[in-house]
Amino acid sequence: MYKFPYYFLGSADTKGVEEKSFVLRGDILWSAEPRRITTLENAYLVCLEGRSEGVFKELPREYAQLPLREHRGKLIIPGLTDLHVHAPQFAFRALGMDKPLLAWLEEKTFPEEGRYHDLAYAREAYTRFVEEVKRGPNTRLCVLATIHGPGSLLLMELLEESGLVSLVGKLSMDRNCPPYLMEENSEGALREWLDAYTQRRAQGGLANTGAILSPRFFPSCSEGSLKALAEIQREEGLPLQSHLSESRDEITWVRELCPQSPHYAGAYEDMGLLKGPTIMAHCVWPEEKEMDLLAQRGVHIAHCPQANMNLASGIAPVRQLLERGIPLGLGSDVAAGTETSIFRAMTDAIQVSKLRSLSFPQERPLSLEEAFYLGTAGGASFFNKLGTMGGRDFAPQKAGSFEQGWDLDALIIDDSSLVGGTTLPLLERLERVIYLSDDRHITEKYVRGKSILP
Amino acid sequence: MYKFPYYFLGSADTKGVEEKSFVLRGDILWSAEPRRITTLENAYLVCLEGRSEGVFKELPREYAQLPLREHRGKLIIPGLTDLHVHAPQFAFRALGMDKPLLAWLEEKTFPEEGRYHDLAYAREAYTRFVEEVKRGPNTRLCVLATIHGPGSLLLMELLEESGLVSLVGKLSMDRNCPPYLMEENSEGALREWLDAYTQRRAQGGLANTGAILSPRFFPSCSEGSLKALAEIQREEGLPLQSHLSESRDEITWVRELCPQSPHYAGAYEDMGLLKGPTIMAHCVWPEEKEMDLLAQRGVHIAHCPQANMNLASGIAPVRQLLERGIPLGLGSDVAAGTETSIFRAMTDAIQVSKLRSLSFPQERPLSLEEAFYLGTAGGASFFNKLGTMGGRDFAPQKAGSFEQGWDLDALIIDDSSLVGGTTLPLLERLERVIYLSDDRHITEKYVRGKSILP
Repeated sequence: MYKFPYYFLGSADTKGVEEKSFVLRGDILWSAEPRRITTLENAYLVCLEGRSEGVFKELPREYAQLPLREHRGKLIIPGLTDLHVHAPQFAFRALGMDKPLLAWLEEKTFPEEGRYHDLAYAREAYTRFVEEVKRGPNTRLCVLATIHGPGSLLLMELLEESGLVSLVGKLSMDRNCPPYLMEENSEGALREWLDAYTQRRAQGGLANTGAILSPRFFPSCSEGSLKALAEIQREEGLPLQSHLSESRDEITWVRELCPQSPHYAGAYEDMGLLKGPTIMAHCVWPEEKEMDLLAQRGVHIAHCPQANMNLASGIAPVRQLLERGIPLGLGSDVAAGTETSIFRAMTDAIQVSKLRSLSFPQERPLSLEEAFYLGTAGGASFFNKLGTMGGRDFAPQKAGSFEQGWDLDALIIDDSSLVGGTTLPLLERLERVIYLSDDRHITEKYVRGKSILP
Repeated sequence: MYKFPYYFLGSADTKGVEEKSFVLRGDILWSAEPRRITTLENAYLVCLEGRSEGVFKELPREYAQLPLREHRGKLIIPGLTDLHVHAPQFAFRALGMDKPLLAWLEEKTFPEEGRYHDLAYAREAYTRFVEEVKRGPNTRLCVLATIHGPGSLLLMELLEESGLVSLVGKLSMDRNCPPYLMEENSEGALREWLDAYTQRRAQGGLANTGAILSPRFFPSCSEGSLKALAEIQREEGLPLQSHLSESRDEITWVRELCPQSPHYAGAYEDMGLLKGPTIMAHCVWPEEKEMDLLAQRGVHIAHCPQANMNLASGIAPVRQLLERGIPLGLGSDVAAGTETSIFRAMTDAIQVSKLRSLSFPQERPLSLEEAFYLGTAGGASFFNKLGTMGGRDFAPQKAGSFEQGWDLDALIIDDSSLVGGTTLPLLERLERVIYLSDDRHITEKYVRGKSILP
């Protein structure tokens, strides 16, 4: 394993430290481990300089001087993490959903992505995407942009401005794609974007927005460009995201492109691309040995149940991945998924796991507790990995739960309009919120201790 | 086949006939056949005394005197039909979704249904259900209540008041259920409820609300009570709704209860219960000959994709049912489904059909056009059947499309806040509305020509 240098996600915002120290009172739920949700009614969540000091039934005296923000009767839960979302696809989500994958890519995805060289268009489209996510329950996201460096940097600026925490990737593509998305010098374009990003950070910008290497998927990158990516990763200590084993046709294609590799993940491995913190989306059809490699490398899988359905890819074997200890989170995969909310990904994940268990009875369906964990601490643990690589001058990016010392990402949810509302046990209220709530129920949203809703 | 007397759904509301004659202008879409959606931009939909006179690109001179209701730039589509929904389960929807069917019934469903003997509680809970449906896109529904006659009549009054069109069934249950839901004299209770209903109609009430016989499902009714139901159907000319072949365990159970019947549908047939207009929910595991019988009897199947997933029942073979010409509509199946909106049932139906096609490649997934048809004219065609049996003094209940002479059930949808909004082709705007809209996008809602939103 490489030692990754202190590099991205940078300094915590030092402005407003006082505003980032306070106490929230309400009905608090969080999940620090996959099978258990801890609940505490009418309790106190203490935030000190943007980080959790823990949850208390009685407020310890040392925090008595902090401002109390009263949310009695409301739910307080960790923010959600979207581990896989295509920002430029937001503009055409829920269009052409009947098309087979190839037609959908050629008629919808590629032409739309081609428009993001135009910065005016990119600003308009990305602004809508960021506004939608900001209103919803997600607080952290790993985003794929397009091949365009300036557009990708603009997306980073917009995300930073929103207060959300994100990793954003300019795509790398230099084969098997339409000419207008084919990079002539993929490595050069990537370095140029990274230089611009580094410059912005040197100016003190982009404190909550990191860069992530993003080869679109194996077939869209030449061997040369993949090896250059590995080299850049070694130099810069960047994480990486891509797609893995989504459909059987794709797997066959990778086998043809890379006959010497034992399987699809092995093809990435052979290019030296599984050495840093890595997210692979989908993993619907993994082989046994492929899962062994993923476990060994600690690769995060972004499970995207909506995409599993909409693209008729099949249902990812989530129970198998979990049992092998492969880190797992949830992705909206907009626009293969139509909904940005990771609440929806939780219920979809449960539903498709139930259908899968009909064919594979030994694979127990996901429980509510597990789905909630995946959408909060499970996905956010990818940011913890960045923490272990070090950020330039801030503490590890632990998030997705309310453990002491973790970043305070929290949602305040008013569920009184849902039938039965606040009279139910906390866990049932949470279940109802996961299945039924929308942005109207989110009354406040904190990211790293900062309130980001107007 | 029986001749069914003129009986239910009664006289069209004669008040406000003038208000029910008008012209709507907007972007109009409707579906009169399964595979085609007709679209007409900036067109006129003429409503005369609650019924459609058709859609016109130029307004015919004879309608020029009618008041013009301007909805330029908005979508106008037929209202949706929910062919299977449990009103008393609305109160606990999205709770206990991880439980297996039996535990869910015993811990959630039955105790909640037991509460509806209390009319004050029934009023509170049913009011919330009706308000939710009224705000959403459904205009017609086939509803299962509980065993309680007075509560079921109250639900009918509330639905009538809302302006929605519905068929409501007091449940019949006299075996294999908890003591507090076990009827001692199921036939007597049913006749009592029907008498009360008939009396209300004689007083001029319940013009849009009909009664439907509702044995919960085969195992919950004794042979005696099922035969009594058949007798009442013969006397009164009422439609009937129940459940069919939802899970494999249930099918085994019915085989044990009724070893002489060739299959589950055959068990109903043998009790004389498939002779009138019939809705059977689910039909996930039909046998070949069972489908032949359903086709022969013209039984409507309510396909409930959310329930297919949430209860891990399996995915109904919708393509097979369609190819055999079995009438089909969509059901929310609240609370086995969590969402009341039939838009959601449309997208769920498409998604599960894609998953099914992975195992059964010969079964082509549902298209958007087909799902839209099922949720509009397909489901509503059940009401057409009532029409063919005759209502006491009103025209056939044709609905779910804008064909001339059909009841005008319509939604006005403002999709300008959806990305890309009104600049897309009409069919794409509709697709986006189906996948992404919620009650905020519905600006007006007509049922039989009457505007029912405040």
